[in-house]
Amino acid sequence: MNGAQALIRTLVDSGVDVCFSNPGTSEMHFVAALDSVPEMRGVLALFEGVATGAADGYARMTGKPAAVLLHLGPGLGNGLANLHNARRAKVPMVNIVGDHAIPHKPLDAPLESDIVAVASNVSTWIRTAGSSADIGRVTAEAVAAAHGAPGQIATLILPADVSWGAGGVASERIGPSGRAPVNVDLVTEMVELLISGEPTMLFLGGTACSERGLVAAARVAAVTGCQLMAETFPTRMTRGAGRPLVQRLGYLSEMSTEQLKDVKHLITVDTKVPVTFFAYPDKPSRLIPEGCVTHTLAGDVDDAVAALEALADALDAPMQVATQDRIGGEIPTGDLNAHSVAQIVGALLPEGAIVSDEAVTSSLSLPFTTAGAPPHDWLSLTGGAIGQGLPVAVGAAIAAPDRPVVALQADGSAMYTIQSLWTMARENLDVTTVLYNNASYEILKMELDRVGAEGAGPKAHSLLDIGGPVMDFTAMAKGMGVPATRATTAEEFADQFAKALAEPGPALVEVMIPKLF
Amino acid sequence: MNGAQALIRTLVDSGVDVCFSNPGTSEMHFVAALDSVPEMRGVLALFEGVATGAADGYARMTGKPAAVLLHLGPGLGNGLANLHNARRAKVPMVNIVGDHAIPHKPLDAPLESDIVAVASNVSTWIRTAGSSADIGRVTAEAVAAAHGAPGQIATLILPADVSWGAGGVASERIGPSGRAPVNVDLVTEMVELLISGEPTMLFLGGTACSERGLVAAARVAAVTGCQLMAETFPTRMTRGAGRPLVQRLGYLSEMSTEQLKDVKHLITVDTKVPVTFFAYPDKPSRLIPEGCVTHTLAGDVDDAVAALEALADALDAPMQVATQDRIGGEIPTGDLNAHSVAQIVGALLPEGAIVSDEAVTSSLSLPFTTAGAPPHDWLSLTGGAIGQGLPVAVGAAIAAPDRPVVALQADGSAMYTIQSLWTMARENLDVTTVLYNNASYEILKMELDRVGAEGAGPKAHSLLDIGGPVMDFTAMAKGMGVPATRATTAEEFADQFAKALAEPGPALVEVMIPKLF
Repeated sequence: MNGAQALIRTLVDSGVDVCFSNPGTSEMHFVAALDSVPEMRGVLALFEGVATGAADGYARMTGKPAAVLLHLGPGLGNGLANLHNARRAKVPMVNIVGDHAIPHKPLDAPLESDIVAVASNVSTWIRTAGSSADIGRVTAEAVAAAHGAPGQIATLILPADVSWGAGGVASERIGPSGRAPVNVDLVTEMVELLISGEPTMLFLGGTACSERGLVAAARVAAVTGCQLMAETFPTRMTRGAGRPLVQRLGYLSEMSTEQLKDVKHLITVDTKVPVTFFAYPDKPSRLIPEGCVTHTLAGDVDDAVAALEALADALDAPMQVATQDRIGGEIPTGDLNAHSVAQIVGALLPEGAIVSDEAVTSSLSLPFTTAGAPPHDWLSLTGGAIGQGLPVAVGAAIAAPDRPVVALQADGSAMYTIQSLWTMARENLDVTTVLYNNASYEILKMELDRVGAEGAGPKAHSLLDIGGPVMDFTAMAKGMGVPATRATTAEEFADQFAKALAEPGPALVEVMIPKLF
Repeated sequence: MNGAQALIRTLVDSGVDVCFSNPGTSEMHFVAALDSVPEMRGVLALFEGVATGAADGYARMTGKPAAVLLHLGPGLGNGLANLHNARRAKVPMVNIVGDHAIPHKPLDAPLESDIVAVASNVSTWIRTAGSSADIGRVTAEAVAAAHGAPGQIATLILPADVSWGAGGVASERIGPSGRAPVNVDLVTEMVELLISGEPTMLFLGGTACSERGLVAAARVAAVTGCQLMAETFPTRMTRGAGRPLVQRLGYLSEMSTEQLKDVKHLITVDTKVPVTFFAYPDKPSRLIPEGCVTHTLAGDVDDAVAALEALADALDAPMQVATQDRIGGEIPTGDLNAHSVAQIVGALLPEGAIVSDEAVTSSLSLPFTTAGAPPHDWLSLTGGAIGQGLPVAVGAAIAAPDRPVVALQADGSAMYTIQSLWTMARENLDVTTVLYNNASYEILKMELDRVGAEGAGPKAHSLLDIGGPVMDFTAMAKGMGVPATRATTAEEFADQFAKALAEPGPALVEVMIPKLF
């Protein structure tokens, strides 16, 4: 077999059987080799950011890496923003970047550039496959590295001649290193702290936001009275009726400092001590109050769920915890705005839904209106690089074809990876996109005010206004093969959203909502 | 004034008065400062690749840099592919990347990443502004660096607190270092070579493809009988009736080796010895024949036009040269395909048009059908990173508002930066886009065959097929505010293209053409 065939065979044998692809000439042998390994599914994206974001969404739902196939330095660049989000999501991914044939590289052909430099922005494991003979081994190492705690982007640079060269040998799976075991002394220490009576918060992120993690945390809270709080943008958070209700820390520091103000001890579990997203003049970047002491129950390479369970067991906490009731379901009528949309989403969200949330300023009501919806998973904008929502929805739908996916998507951020809609149509993915059209970068208007920018006038405001012309996402979606409708009242939205959910395959409902500012 | 105001004032005083922008929170003070410097024009893009490609197109038409405003590492990543093309185009650009406030950076907030690493892929001049007091000086240095021969991407990293800090001081323009003067001895040497009678080719790129450069080269050819050839993808090539006719080297090595086969001496002028874009198994990457000797009249830091003129003068070449006649103008009827589209484009191309060419496989006939069109400029895909055509058209239209811009755009590559259409509508740019819809990555089908990929079957071919679903670019264009029509016959296209050219403002004509393969 040639190098590309050995590579794909090794991926499949290592459990990686989906490849989100946007190939070019240097990847043609990889593409050709797909036919020789029937277990590998190739999913085409029209833009690299769709491929990388989809691999992120896939990993969030399966816990295992997908492969991504990108074309040289520019293709990696186009995929970089969602690789950044995936890095922050701590998901595994095998990021394959095609390169020129090794003897071609010194010639400085037009597409030559420094791939390693760009990859180093998102990836600590970067290797170039040096020969067809060892590509199998390097690939198995890449998969193992991707699986390494907490979940890594392993970047494998693949010269074209290594792909096409004969003598490829597939390699067996290399077992991933696994998470660090529970530190029993630390658990004992945290028990002491939790029963001391001092106001304490378990601050949960990453794997701790899984159902097992939240249940264990809720057990701890039930017997100690500690507060529970999830990080602002968890990779995947289990929510809804029948699950423990844990609020997330607010995005705005005005809100999050209030949520944290009484905390004397903050215990982080698979997350970091919270800081503001951005710095603001004369405001602190740290969010915890003066004098608050921070502790780490589990870092991101540790088995956080096991640590939480060990803590709950050490406290003799009962297994049964209070969970969220099934509430909501009222469908408002009349004006359509971010709040009424959120109410309708909460009322109609199907059981087992996967929500990809990039609603940005339109998301404010969503945590409350969906808390009592049927059980679901919530995927959020982990790295803050917009253009994640639709690609993550693509990947989640590939990962979980039996579950409905709902993408809650703001207009401005939708435009970074709008090409996702085409892949939804091509793969007939059951994704219902709610597209919030307020024709404005509302978050930036808010931030312009929050940063205290001096002298902002008409020119500044015009750069935050995407209403001239107002985009027609219904037309764009149809242009990419996704059935779409537009709603201007609550009744229309409820009707269109319900119909879109009832139909298999992709749909987009554009909600025309007023600006906030 | 604050740092951002000092920065923008310095840009304007240094001759940089357009900023293609896609800002985020960390750039809000920059955005606010736009109102305090009325000479600076901010142009909003919905995606960073549009902004960086537009700055490239702008520089190609003005010879001076535009500024680009990007948001942190992910924004830079999104802009990277067109920065790569701009690097290969050797155009000046001031690439401003906002960053977190300096004290915020060690906190590893969600959007923190290694900006310098990514910038190093495209930029040799990279500086971080360290304080509001010295931002003016650093900005003036950035502009000077951008202007430095041959044209550089100067990346200025701008921490938010440097923007908002008081005590900004605008700096005066720093004169750029010019191009190296003509090497008289080298000219004498080339004269000897050219009159030796050995088959010699002047191989022209970069600035040598300007009208002055081509005229000087044609003078040399007229008296020495040397061949003239332009590089495959010149940054900007002057063409059409009344100008010297110089062919470009073909993209396919099957074609270019034939073009070069009799050359004994190749003299490069602001370009490099040609190599294939990609490597292919068992084929050479070098294109020149065995035994061909290469010489450099002017490298990319030299004044290539002056060198060519000195060469022509040293040869006592007459000033008058043969130029291309005005030919073409016949409008075909019947079937619409890449060739009939090319004939109609050649027939109707307006005088002074700027053509942004990313027609890819549909471009094969264009050099011939447009050779005798009224005088025009041709902008090509310098770095091979697709998604350049529409952004470059945006920038060219901003740079030259009195000239019609024609974007010849393939479907697959259009989808990387399709958001360009919205900026065309917003700025009411006189860009007529011809969108070639063959619903296929035809170039990759051709390359799949050329690389001799083994075992390609239905899965491989399906990854090169973008026809399921077929995109409707007319709908997408309308969704972004650009009037659009679809043509299925030659008559329809001629009629729609003529109307689109006659109307000011943007328009898109989608041509439904058959696949080649």
